[in-house]
Amino acid sequence: MRAVLLRHPGGPDALRVEQVPEPVPEPGQSLIDVTLTGVNFDDLDQRAGAHPHLPLPAILGVEAAGRRRADGRRVVALLRQGGGYAEVVAAPDAHTVEIPTGLADAQALGLFEQGGTAYGALVLAGRLRPGESVAVTAAAGGVGHLAVQLAVALGASPVIGLASTPAKRRFVTGLGADAALGPADPDLPARLRAATGGVGVDLVVDSVGGTVARAALAALAPFGRLVCLGWRPTAAPDRARPATGVGDPAGSGALPGGEAGIIALSTAELAHGSIGCAGFWMRHVVDRRALLCDVADRLFALAAQGRLTVHVDRTVPLADVGAAHAAVAARTTTGKVLIDVRREG
Amino acid sequence: MRAVLLRHPGGPDALRVEQVPEPVPEPGQSLIDVTLTGVNFDDLDQRAGAHPHLPLPAILGVEAAGRRRADGRRVVALLRQGGGYAEVVAAPDAHTVEIPTGLADAQALGLFEQGGTAYGALVLAGRLRPGESVAVTAAAGGVGHLAVQLAVALGASPVIGLASTPAKRRFVTGLGADAALGPADPDLPARLRAATGGVGVDLVVDSVGGTVARAALAALAPFGRLVCLGWRPTAAPDRARPATGVGDPAGSGALPGGEAGIIALSTAELAHGSIGCAGFWMRHVVDRRALLCDVADRLFALAAQGRLTVHVDRTVPLADVGAAHAAVAARTTTGKVLIDVRREG
Repeated sequence: MRAVLLRHPGGPDALRVEQVPEPVPEPGQSLIDVTLTGVNFDDLDQRAGAHPHLPLPAILGVEAAGRRRADGRRVVALLRQGGGYAEVVAAPDAHTVEIPTGLADAQALGLFEQGGTAYGALVLAGRLRPGESVAVTAAAGGVGHLAVQLAVALGASPVIGLASTPAKRRFVTGLGADAALGPADPDLPARLRAATGGVGVDLVVDSVGGTVARAALAALAPFGRLVCLGWRPTAAPDRARPATGVGDPAGSGALPGGEAGIIALSTAELAHGSIGCAGFWMRHVVDRRALLCDVADRLFALAAQGRLTVHVDRTVPLADVGAAHAAVAARTTTGKVLIDVRREG
Repeated sequence: MRAVLLRHPGGPDALRVEQVPEPVPEPGQSLIDVTLTGVNFDDLDQRAGAHPHLPLPAILGVEAAGRRRADGRRVVALLRQGGGYAEVVAAPDAHTVEIPTGLADAQALGLFEQGGTAYGALVLAGRLRPGESVAVTAAAGGVGHLAVQLAVALGASPVIGLASTPAKRRFVTGLGADAALGPADPDLPARLRAATGGVGVDLVVDSVGGTVARAALAALAPFGRLVCLGWRPTAAPDRARPATGVGDPAGSGALPGGEAGIIALSTAELAHGSIGCAGFWMRHVVDRRALLCDVADRLFALAAQGRLTVHVDRTVPLADVGAAHAAVAARTTTGKVLIDVRREG
């Protein structure tokens, strides 16, 4: 089969299409003939060598949609061990769900991992209630653009998106956000407060960390909380921390400057403002089959109602995965970056 | 009128009963003929000099029950500016509620401030849902013993109390806790997990901080959270940080070693465990009249149903306030310490 192989850590050109044997499923795994896989921040980390224990050569890719060979059913799977950048993957049955009739593979793929992360942040960690205000950082990103729509669907109001360019902010308001702000605005806390009528933000979903997370914390209302999904050092955008959850949000710490976006909080400052900070790692959903299925059902149902749509930035062939990595690292993408493994490059 | 005056910061003997003029109410205040006031940790801080901006001489005491002179109604009031250790206090109307018929002054007094703090920790900051597990540190204390009962009343299960002596632990299980553990147990995280059937604790209400808070954090289940109400340096029990909320939980930092119980958290560790930490300061309820009344109504209703009872450790005359301070500082009390201002010492 054709697959994108990483033989040595490196830049985007370290990813090469090669012919390799099909994987052999272990007990509890099933072969999937992959249609689509996606680019996630954790893939960039792995490619750059952030996970020194990753056995090489490796096939990256932590998610895949396609047909289960055993029964021909359309499925979507999370691949903690990677393997998605290939025509065939052996996926854990416990991390695989069927795609409902009428839902496209691309939608199911975007909803399962990144939608699941948005759901976990808003509902499981954030405990959002209808009528609360929500701010989402990196709101034009793969997780962020789903978090904005999901917040609206769950009755949050107002919903505020943070995005770095005017075009991305237009995209974010187009998703249903009541306001879109720039994360680099030095008056960000005051602007966030103003966007909530001076009350402060009830829930922040943050995958950026650092100064942006600090500004959002300063804008929290009493009983407000910030949910941290990951962090990205501002100085080295190609050395990103995962904003989605199959990868390890705490990472290996092996990247120079890779921990810059982590922030420290004291119980004194939390008590002083009656505010909170929680983390969310998708792994804690993935490891709970009933919860994973419940989250997927909810997200697929909202998609069927037209209330949640994965925006696909681009769909590239396997041969162009390196270029897609570069685009994600440069933060020029909006929404989800897909890989059509069957398309010839 | 008779009042306990603090002329200079010091030990328990710095508190002296004196004859002073009655206070003159400012606009928005009403005179209350005090029946009962209570001893709170913040009082000990103030007495010891932790609040250098406190104008002296001062009448301490951040809560009072009694009769409003204007209409003879039985009321309970929170006194951010102090003044409770006296026969008459000028209380802010915005921080005063009427005591329902059938509810004793002692019950109303314990429920309003310390019950309100327990409610804020469990519901407002902790977002407790029925069926979740709860652990309460300092569970035999003024706030803690109400938090245990309230957690049970709100459907938490199991409810685990931490208390330092066998007698206090018996008291805690007598309140309805499913288990009582010692906070100094070196295996505390494992014991907390075992008490939840190996799952981990969903919600911890903590007013101790330091190593106890750290152990509780290590025992949190995914999506679990620790709510911090304050902290007490283990080395100097008489130099306590407030565990209740009218005082400033971040304090002035003026006490030597007074910040020892504060803990620092990184977003990395929160994300790694999908756990959260929130603070709660009663001031954020006190400042919201509608919320304050709602919280009081809920607590008074639970008391009327017999599901929430303030345990009074002792009731002392004004002349014995210093001795009561010493008992609270030594952590030999269980439940609420009251001052009957009308009783002759």
